[in-house]
This record gives sequence, C-alpha cells and structure tokens, in this order.
Amino acid sequence: MAAAAGEPKKIIIDTDPGIDDAMAIFVALRSPEVEVIGLTTIYGNVYTTLATRNALHLLEIADRTDIPVAEGSHVTFTNDKKLRIADFVHGADGLGNQNFPPPEGKPIDMSATDFLVEQANLYPGKVTVVALGPLTNIALAIQKDPSFVKNIGQIVLLGGAFAVNGNVNPAAEANIFGDPDAADIVFTSGADVLAVGINVTHQVILTDSDRETLASSNGKFAQYLLKILEVYFNYHRDAYSTKGVYLHDPTAMLAAINPSLITYVEGAVRVQKNGITRGLTLLYNKQKRFAEITEWSDQPSVKVAVTVDAPAVLKLVLERLME
Amino acid sequence: MAAAAGEPKKIIIDTDPGIDDAMAIFVALRSPEVEVIGLTTIYGNVYTTLATRNALHLLEIADRTDIPVAEGSHVTFTNDKKLRIADFVHGADGLGNQNFPPPEGKPIDMSATDFLVEQANLYPGKVTVVALGPLTNIALAIQKDPSFVKNIGQIVLLGGAFAVNGNVNPAAEANIFGDPDAADIVFTSGADVLAVGINVTHQVILTDSDRETLASSNGKFAQYLLKILEVYFNYHRDAYSTKGVYLHDPTAMLAAINPSLITYVEGAVRVQKNGITRGLTLLYNKQKRFAEITEWSDQPSVKVAVTVDAPAVLKLVLERLME
Repeated sequence: MAAAAGEPKKIIIDTDPGIDDAMAIFVALRSPEVEVIGLTTIYGNVYTTLATRNALHLLEIADRTDIPVAEGSHVTFTNDKKLRIADFVHGADGLGNQNFPPPEGKPIDMSATDFLVEQANLYPGKVTVVALGPLTNIALAIQKDPSFVKNIGQIVLLGGAFAVNGNVNPAAEANIFGDPDAADIVFTSGADVLAVGINVTHQVILTDSDRETLASSNGKFAQYLLKILEVYFNYHRDAYSTKGVYLHDPTAMLAAINPSLITYVEGAVRVQKNGITRGLTLLYNKQKRFAEITEWSDQPSVKVAVTVDAPAVLKLVLERLME
Repeated sequence: MAAAAGEPKKIIIDTDPGIDDAMAIFVALRSPEVEVIGLTTIYGNVYTTLATRNALHLLEIADRTDIPVAEGSHVTFTNDKKLRIADFVHGADGLGNQNFPPPEGKPIDMSATDFLVEQANLYPGKVTVVALGPLTNIALAIQKDPSFVKNIGQIVLLGGAFAVNGNVNPAAEANIFGDPDAADIVFTSGADVLAVGINVTHQVILTDSDRETLASSNGKFAQYLLKILEVYFNYHRDAYSTKGVYLHDPTAMLAAINPSLITYVEGAVRVQKNGITRGLTLLYNKQKRFAEITEWSDQPSVKVAVTVDAPAVLKLVLERLME
C-alpha cells in the first residue's frame, strides 16, 4: 500500500476548519512526505458552508489554490440529528473571530463523496484520507462505492476517546459525537483505519512558551496562526485550566505523515449510537473469548493510537510552521 | 461513620452464590474485623431461588445458621428484561456442579429490600452492604426508603469495567449488565459507594499453584472450595487462556474489610442503559468543565477502585480460608 520510494503520499484532508485544522493543513502543505490532492469539507467546528469558505481561504493564504476543495455533507449520515457546532471553541467564524475577507475561489463542482470515490479509484491503494471532522463524507463514500474500502489506502482519523473521558461530555469525543452512525460505518467497514483519539492528542500541548517561539518566526503561517490562536487558548484556559492548547488535528496529520510517531493497538471498534453515552468509542482488544455473540464479534480490526512521541510532534509542528 | 474502635464493622452480603461468592462469604466469616449480620440474595450467577438455597447451604457449611438470609428480587428493577444467568461460569447449581444436599434452613420472612432498610435504620451509619451481584435489591431499598441512602454506612460493590473491556461483552461487566437501571440508581443515589470493578479484580488471580497451597490445608473451607473451584478454573482457561481464576468477590469483600488494600479515584458514575454498550459504567473524573450540561453534571461523587495490593489480597484470602 505504500507509495513508491521518493514519491510523496497522496492525501485528501477531510476538514471542518477550525483553528487546529488550519494548523494541520499548513503542516501538510509544508511536509515534503505528502502531496495534498484535495480538501473535502464537513460540519463540526463550523457549518459545512463556512468550512468550505475557510478551506478555500486557507489555501489562498498558502498560495495553493491549485488544490481542489470539494464541499461535503451539510447533514449527518442519517439526517435526523441536530448538528453540534463547536463555535465556542474556534470562534464564530471558525478561525479565531478574525473576520478575514471572503475567499476568491470556489469549490469544485463535485461533492466531497464523489471526489473521495473518484480519487480512490484513480489511485487505488495510494490515497490516504486524513479525516479531521465528523465522518459523514467517508461513510457516504463507503455507502456509494463498495470498492472504496478496498481502493482507499488508509483512513487516518482524529476521533474517539479510548478509555478516557470525552471532550463533548464524559463519554464522547466531538468528531464521533458529531455523527456516531457514520463513525460506526467507518470503523466496521474493513478499510485500513487508524484512529487517533483524544487519549493521544491530549498529550500534545502547544504551550504559551511555544506560542512565543512561533511568534519569533516571520513565516506567513506562523504569523497567521498567532492571530487565530488567541480564541483557542482562551477556550482551553476556561475548559481545562491549561496555559496551552491541544494539537488534535496536527497530531493526527503527523501520524498520517510519519506513522513512527505513534504506537497503536488493534481491535474492533464500535460506536454507541444512543443514550447517555452516544458517541462513545469502544475498542474490543480481543483478549477474552465471550460466551455469547457480541456486537464486536467478527468485526474487522482497526488501529487505535495509544502512545505518541509528543515532543517530536510538537517539534515538527513548530519547524514546519516556522519555515 | 466508622465503627467504634474494637467493634467489628457490621456487614450485609448481597450475593448470588456463585463460586467466588462462596469464597468471599467464607473470608468474611473468618474476618474478625467484620460481623456478618445477614445475607441477602439476588439473581446473577444463578436464579434468585437457587441463590437463596446456596446462601443457606454455605452458612450451614460454616456452622453459622445464626445469620439470617433474606431472599431478594427475582426480576430486574424495571422488570422488563430477560435475566442473564452465568451458569456457564459457576456450574448449573452455582457451586461447581457438586450436587450438594438441599439446606435445612429457610430464609427469613422478610424480603432482602425490607431487611436492608430495617438494618440501616437500626444501626444508622454502621452497616456496610457488600454487593456481589446485580444491584436490584439495593436500588429497591433506595426507592423504598429515602433515608436508606443516609442511614447506610457504605455500599461496597463488585461491579463495573472502568476503562477496560467488560466480561459479558467488550462494554459491560456482568453485575452491572444484569441490571443497568438499578446500578445507575445506586451510583447516583448520593450514598457512600465504593465500586470495585474488573479493572481491579482482574489483577487478583488465584493460580494453580495457589490452589495446591489451599489443598495443603485440612480446614473445612479450603477443602470445600477445592471441590467447587474446578468448574471455575475450567471457565477461566477457556475464556481467558489463564491457569488461574479471578478473585472478583473476595477482592471486593477485602476492600470492604480493609480499605487500605485498594486506592480509588472519585467522580460521577453513570450507567448506559440501552444499545450496544448497555451496562457500560462511565466515570467522569471532573477534570474538564464542559460547555454543555451533561448527564454527569451535578451528580454525586462515588469512589472507584483503581489499584489493589494484589499479593496482600491473595495472602489474606488464603490465610483466612486455610485457618
């Protein structure tokens, strides 16, 4: 499944920008190991329309308007749930309340789902989807094309709270909570899935002091991010009493770029779809043989990140954003 | 809430015997730190009728027919669920398929719930309930008498799988799975609750070699247990590939007898009542302030065991059973 030596890995970033999405996208654009072949958009940190606008805006900031943006779903997979939008984390505009001018570009005339299916067919086994929001687009691609699961190289997703408290409530992490039905489809699809949950990303913190390091760079990405990070720092101080922010999306991105930065376990993951723990991700480690058939029996294994080389991730993030 | 110095702690054992229940009951009867003032029975390892019969039988084996047995609920708290009976773990008779003769004694003419309420009122703050099965009887006592929560000294329960896979399925531990509604009532009641889950009891293993040690004793408890343990060892070998058995109930009992054997964290615990993770116990550690009201908000804290001095527990179990 690996790209030929020297050939950068093709990635599609499914994203709901989002402050840490912006960081992850910039890191990817500055990483020679990967070639970003498209962005697909989804609700989450903002509504999908704004996610598309922000994705186009971020590519214009990066002078990478050659990269297509395909707009994704505006509703959950089952289209029966109210969307949960984390504007209190990222600002009303998703990018730190900076009131950036609207982008000049437009999304391509193809849905995110169609784009994902097309690219997976075009480069079988060679495209990695890095999914940074709720998994609706990916589930729709799986539903639309039965061969997507086989054609897609890997799905690296920022999602889940494995054996730790969630960040929406004690049970659930925001991206899985955003569309539990879609997440369960992805986890049980048989695709090569690597889940990077907040049990891992909460180990990677950009501190106040790191922010000062970032400020010492005249690079355009560093200067841009300094502006939008303020809102993100404020949220973390209020919610977690930390003088720093979790690098959720950049960590998932770097796990896709350089898998040696994390370790993982394998097992079947199911998502609770209703009740007080809706959105909970539960990994069955396959250590016990149960007397009865369970909802995890005969499900394919996925990879779930359990440790991360946090200093190395932080160093890479800073290096690439300060270039 | 502590008993006066030198005065043994009064305990009521709510039990579904059960091979490890038998061990826990015998350990309690041989522990000078506690006075067993009654057994109440519940379904779980066996149906309630058989649990009552086994409780009476075990007290006869121990020559402690002075201790009353009060029969508990035959159905779950909401009485709308099929019971799950773990006869494949403990044998069809719950005691290792030994076909012991029926007991001569009878349960008292009072339900488990009434007995629990009566004793808590009689000795306010001085009775510890050690709950070794599904929590139906305890929830019924809470429902019946609003002052039970205040009058009961402590509820030490064997239940839950905190941040680990369950033993019924990947999500749920057997006692909580047996009556999730009752368990949620107990966890949110405001009583002084200590939950000892399989995340802790799976650290306390009676090995084949420990069984040989037990066989070297001529004590009646050791000799009795050797007979019934065979079925329990067989189950563990098949389910876990271990040459040993988990001491679930004896560990919970010793945590009640000597709290210094464990450490615990505090937080709000809720139980998932439906869906694929029905019976899952989820502890909110209160580290994050969530933006939204959650099902854990404003719930009382309970204690959840996180570590155990396993060698000390095993040593105490063997010592007291071999006397």
